[in-house]
Amino acid sequence: MEIILNPERNTWSSILQRPGPQMETMDNEIAIIMNAVKTEGDRALIRFTKEFDKVALEHLNVTADEIAKAGSDIDASLKSAIEVAIRNIEIFHRQQLIEEKKVETSPGVICWRKNIPIEKVGFYIPGGNAPLFSTVIMLAVPAAIAGCSEIILCTPPDRNGVIHPAILYTADRLGIKKIFKVGGAQAIAAMAYGTGTVPGVYKIFGPGNPYVTAAKMRVSMEGVAIDMPAGPSEVLVLADQSANPSFIAADLLSQAEHGVDSQVLLITNQMEMIKAVQAAVEKQLLQIPRHDLINSSLENSKMILVEDLDIGIDMINEYAPEHLILMVKDPDQVSDKIINAGSVFLGNYSPESAGDYASGTNHVLATNGFARSFSGVSVDCFLKKITYQKISPRGLQEIGPAIEIMAESEQLMAHKQAVSIRLEQLIESKVPGKNGIKR
Amino acid sequence: MEIILNPERNTWSSILQRPGPQMETMDNEIAIIMNAVKTEGDRALIRFTKEFDKVALEHLNVTADEIAKAGSDIDASLKSAIEVAIRNIEIFHRQQLIEEKKVETSPGVICWRKNIPIEKVGFYIPGGNAPLFSTVIMLAVPAAIAGCSEIILCTPPDRNGVIHPAILYTADRLGIKKIFKVGGAQAIAAMAYGTGTVPGVYKIFGPGNPYVTAAKMRVSMEGVAIDMPAGPSEVLVLADQSANPSFIAADLLSQAEHGVDSQVLLITNQMEMIKAVQAAVEKQLLQIPRHDLINSSLENSKMILVEDLDIGIDMINEYAPEHLILMVKDPDQVSDKIINAGSVFLGNYSPESAGDYASGTNHVLATNGFARSFSGVSVDCFLKKITYQKISPRGLQEIGPAIEIMAESEQLMAHKQAVSIRLEQLIESKVPGKNGIKR
Repeated sequence: MEIILNPERNTWSSILQRPGPQMETMDNEIAIIMNAVKTEGDRALIRFTKEFDKVALEHLNVTADEIAKAGSDIDASLKSAIEVAIRNIEIFHRQQLIEEKKVETSPGVICWRKNIPIEKVGFYIPGGNAPLFSTVIMLAVPAAIAGCSEIILCTPPDRNGVIHPAILYTADRLGIKKIFKVGGAQAIAAMAYGTGTVPGVYKIFGPGNPYVTAAKMRVSMEGVAIDMPAGPSEVLVLADQSANPSFIAADLLSQAEHGVDSQVLLITNQMEMIKAVQAAVEKQLLQIPRHDLINSSLENSKMILVEDLDIGIDMINEYAPEHLILMVKDPDQVSDKIINAGSVFLGNYSPESAGDYASGTNHVLATNGFARSFSGVSVDCFLKKITYQKISPRGLQEIGPAIEIMAESEQLMAHKQAVSIRLEQLIESKVPGKNGIKR
Repeated sequence: MEIILNPERNTWSSILQRPGPQMETMDNEIAIIMNAVKTEGDRALIRFTKEFDKVALEHLNVTADEIAKAGSDIDASLKSAIEVAIRNIEIFHRQQLIEEKKVETSPGVICWRKNIPIEKVGFYIPGGNAPLFSTVIMLAVPAAIAGCSEIILCTPPDRNGVIHPAILYTADRLGIKKIFKVGGAQAIAAMAYGTGTVPGVYKIFGPGNPYVTAAKMRVSMEGVAIDMPAGPSEVLVLADQSANPSFIAADLLSQAEHGVDSQVLLITNQMEMIKAVQAAVEKQLLQIPRHDLINSSLENSKMILVEDLDIGIDMINEYAPEHLILMVKDPDQVSDKIINAGSVFLGNYSPESAGDYASGTNHVLATNGFARSFSGVSVDCFLKKITYQKISPRGLQEIGPAIEIMAESEQLMAHKQAVSIRLEQLIESKVPGKNGIKR
């Protein structure tokens, strides 16, 4: 990890630069994959699965037998752990479902919003070595609370055509009935366009590699919504003398094991802390696997010494970290000054792992600086809010004249007429106007 | 308007096809504009304004003198009308700002979300003949309620280098201090990348022509959020025998005057209603300007006869209209069956114009079928919700073991270690574990 001492403000943006992948180079490749899925459907999915996942599938859908087998393959201890996570995540997300009241903005003008679940949603769960069944929980729990009626899941099979039992077990536990063995950009295309086997959906959720992200961005331009533009994961730890350097080292390493492009940052006002964390990282590295991967991602990572915590807080707000751990004496006070971050962990006993699995908050968060403008996944993401207005004759008499003047000023005479024709009819039918006076 | 009688369900998707513009053809042109703004800044903005808006500007920013002049150019009656609109829109949007409570998901594990305003936002207001000051209200009111600290506005100047006084007056009335004379894709690029004069922002809002929309989609792939993918405006009226055909005609015409690519649809179970609306459209057309434009957009438009209202409701949910007017006997009952729409207008006296200007709801809504997954603009769009967790030693002992099991199952050993190292330290420091028993 690079160590940077008291950097000048005008160097921050280059110091805080993320090691992002270049999207544009893969645009052609993705266009080819997605067009093939659009035109050939399942045939293209099976072909790409053979090409990229090295397995020749006959059917894309997971069978009831496979799900039953997954259930018996999973240890009771893991099942209990999953229940703890589901319980906390449900408790936290359930309170996000708030119905607003109807409001009478002017006499006779009643307006309201209503939560309506997005009918059809699709989840992408990456494959690879780590079976991210925790992400299934993070997406399926809020979708169920919102009330989405069709939920599908795509995830790539291994070379034997098998999906990790923890993913199948968790998806089944949370009521997902349609699971498909397909990954990569082709899975995103399948959920966006629909194929013979995979139903098309209105919104696609879930993390993925740069191909998956680029495919999601592509369909988002074509009429299918996505959760957020996902990038490599990142954590920033802010520490003062009250922090425990071993804990910091463990948190930095846990983020670093996500991938070579993960970024971990430490900002502290203590030079001793930097030295202690450095020593602890070296010591702890010996106790965990994935050394090469962790070492590469540590190369992207920095320990930054600042003169005081307030400078560190400014730096945090400029960087907008996905995860922010505040190991400082008064984390509540510091957290009140944070305006750009995804999920914040307060104190020495709130590791990022807790939010990744079981504290209750969602772990699907905006990376790559998007925390400046995006929230993490919540029940809100599975709803849209339709607005309604119900205006009585009296109500239209109340606000109609203002509408007529504004529409005329915008030179939208037909907009004006839509009000005028109604107000005139009310006069003709002798409905008393505003304040009892006819127009 | 085309009349379609009792169409088969398998023909709906072609009947409900929208007359959308082709985006891809303009991709190169937009890339050139946006790259020029990125590299040359203000110089490129002034050059493109000369090229596209036919005016050579010396400065891009609107001066205090120009704003003062706009204030004196606006009639008192328009000022009062604007106050009615602002008042109702404030009342409706203010109740959207809801703070959630902290929740203890497990003993010692406290999680919460907090509304944090997006710091920097930019509004695009189109130019052209109709000065859309109403859109300024629709964006600035929720931004102010959310508490965004920097709000900027870009809008193209006319050939004299002037911005319509109603736009300037409204922006100033709502506290927008930074207004720039720049339009089109170059304005979107300026707000995304920042120039010497125009500050960069984190999220861009507002309608625009297909160039503006394509530019917004482009920056949304580069790290700047946008409100939504905007398309041509549309209205769908559902009518039974209780509807007033003159009112329907007026509402169809008011939508049709937005642009040649606007779409208006009538669905009814009454053949007589179609005939009466057709006659009323012809009659009312004589009383309003913009005939050519309205006639072109009516060519895209359809009147559809269905056997009963429930079939019409299914069709609505498939189409997902931006605006939906329910001129039916029991609009409340019908509105309960609507799952895909932007803003719904209930009854004979709730014209779309009311929502466009002054009922209180927002008029920036998802078009082009995006109402299936997108909400219209609200206070939510100007906030992000940061999540927090504060876990006590006792709390980590409560949920830590579940996290360890899940992390190990996902083969993320460093994630596990971040918990284990803390639990071990708690044992060493003799903090009693869960249920008083040490691990």
